Amino acid sequence: MSTERIYNFNPGPAALPLEVIEAVRDGFTKFGGMSVLEISHRSKAFSDICDEARMLLARLLAIPDGYHVIFLHGGASQQFAMVPMNLMDKRADYAITGRWSGLALKEAKLFGKTHIAFSSEKTKFSRTPRPEEIDVGKKTSYLHITSNNTVYGTQYHEFPDTGDIPLVADMSSDICSRPIDVPRFGLIYASAQKNLGPAGLAVVIIRNDLVKRRYRDIPTMFRYQTHVEGESRFNTPPVFAIYVMMLVLRWMEGRGGLTEIARANEQKAKFIYDVLDSSSFYRAMAEREGRSAMNVTFSLPSEPLARRFLDEAKRRGMVGLAGHRQVGGVRASIYNAHPPGGAQALAEFMQEFERSR
Amino acid sequence: MSTERIYNFNPGPAALPLEVIEAVRDGFTKFGGMSVLEISHRSKAFSDICDEARMLLARLLAIPDGYHVIFLHGGASQQFAMVPMNLMDKRADYAITGRWSGLALKEAKLFGKTHIAFSSEKTKFSRTPRPEEIDVGKKTSYLHITSNNTVYGTQYHEFPDTGDIPLVADMSSDICSRPIDVPRFGLIYASAQKNLGPAGLAVVIIRNDLVKRRYRDIPTMFRYQTHVEGESRFNTPPVFAIYVMMLVLRWMEGRGGLTEIARANEQKAKFIYDVLDSSSFYRAMAEREGRSAMNVTFSLPSEPLARRFLDEAKRRGMVGLAGHRQVGGVRASIYNAHPPGGAQALAEFMQEFERSR
Repeated sequence: MSTERIYNFNPGPAALPLEVIEAVRDGFTKFGGMSVLEISHRSKAFSDICDEARMLLARLLAIPDGYHVIFLHGGASQQFAMVPMNLMDKRADYAITGRWSGLALKEAKLFGKTHIAFSSEKTKFSRTPRPEEIDVGKKTSYLHITSNNTVYGTQYHEFPDTGDIPLVADMSSDICSRPIDVPRFGLIYASAQKNLGPAGLAVVIIRNDLVKRRYRDIPTMFRYQTHVEGESRFNTPPVFAIYVMMLVLRWMEGRGGLTEIARANEQKAKFIYDVLDSSSFYRAMAEREGRSAMNVTFSLPSEPLARRFLDEAKRRGMVGLAGHRQVGGVRASIYNAHPPGGAQALAEFMQEFERSR
Repeated sequence: MSTERIYNFNPGPAALPLEVIEAVRDGFTKFGGMSVLEISHRSKAFSDICDEARMLLARLLAIPDGYHVIFLHGGASQQFAMVPMNLMDKRADYAITGRWSGLALKEAKLFGKTHIAFSSEKTKFSRTPRPEEIDVGKKTSYLHITSNNTVYGTQYHEFPDTGDIPLVADMSSDICSRPIDVPRFGLIYASAQKNLGPAGLAVVIIRNDLVKRRYRDIPTMFRYQTHVEGESRFNTPPVFAIYVMMLVLRWMEGRGGLTEIARANEQKAKFIYDVLDSSSFYRAMAEREGRSAMNVTFSLPSEPLARRFLDEAKRRGMVGLAGHRQVGGVRASIYNAHPPGGAQALAEFMQEFERSR
């Protein structure tokens, strides 16, 4: 790299693997006499990129036959609307574990009756539900969950078994951070900018039988069927973002796949949680059993002290650590591409900062 | 460039200015110790990029006060739906000049009564209407036109004066290719991947009074008001695409603005049209008064001959010249960033190919 690389703890857009950034830069103009920014979405070059991205994702997540993988514009916020538009008949159930699941619920209300199957709002979203705590109706179109909650730093470690009711999961902030059992889900969606690539792209994994559900007339661009049939090229897709994602997925496979990646993520999170668990100075925001390996959130004895912590961290080359404006404190986002050295440096700084008080 | 640069006549994603590509590559990792792909959409760096892009666009197009400029996901196809969702009360009028205006019309039908105010379908979309040919109702929510038609190679050279009826224009394929009179329009939208930047981004210029129109409940992400109020950062926007667009807009300004760019575009188109006008071998698809400076379309005496033409052109480093699959023949897309040398090389090759028959 031409300038020194700092430790990027941003919640998304987030750090990408250095190898990927270098590969993008080095290959930037090497696409048959043009740049990757200029290739046609109908070209063989891009068709190969799309196919490889889909194949890599299927291999990494062990997506079985019977599912489609599509790449869409618009991020997860657009999926908050597309899910009920496409899948909701009269009722849909939502488990509310933070800001993003609340925003997803809001969009569903436009299309029918919603039911809150679980909420941890009373404890300031400090945890995710145990499977048996989720109250799913029998006559509901789906249950929607948010697998990892960036604002509060919580994560599902066990998913509910919803039987015939499709389980829909927003995995924006932890997709491909660990192996998951895809057959348990009807639909999985994720924006790319945390674990998969740059901003401006969403990935949807949808079970065949859900593709053709049709409860209302909806615009062509907002129908999953359109993009399944158009193989993610109904309209011009975000070509460059898909290309970078493909390189990120290659990198994941090169690291040994999701089991190895999960191990590395646990290790990174442990550096920080170990400090939290042995300190009375810092206070972890999430309850122990539901805490996230992606976003570690904690508070300091006071907000002025937290600001001093953030300033000092920044001077030491650790940026993006401010907690979400709704909760304050500190949030360390340590997605797949965040290097172990970053989490370790933060843990050491935390100890030093505590000692210096 | 590391490899030789070829002449890219693709209809979009299309050629970008070489200076921009080099600037992106050279600055790729120089964003405060990270890559531009990793910066937060809430960072000052990105805020500055967004502001500069908006300011440059306003200056280039002479957008007066009373308009908002927003940057959205999803390309023009998403605007086909968002326009009627947001702006259509009971009826909307559409001028049909080709494939894309037809697709826009299709989405409007989901939201009310549509009226075809003009159609050149009978002459295979060989032309755009003269203003007086457009039959706009008095009680319609807007008139929608497509300013440049990529498939047929036609372009509006005079826009209708619709009085109190908002004029809505899809300018995906000719935005910033020439000066336009923005106050004539209620809403202008364009996908970026032809004249503005890479794929995965749409620009919307909307008059204040249209922002708050509300005829139905629509999802948050599909409301213009959301993105006006969120200053294009309601959700994570396509950060990198906006960055590249900002560089492209800088390049436009450096070239002397849209008057100079229009002059250069006319010059490029003239190379090719001059050959067409003096040949009985090639046949221009568009009628003379409505032909496009962005996409020059023509046929050869037979499709096998056209294929030979395309093959031979490719061997000479001219790619992306195949006509749209619906019309066949040849299409030369020569947007702003297409270098004059490319259009000239094509014109010379056309003459040589004709002589060799």
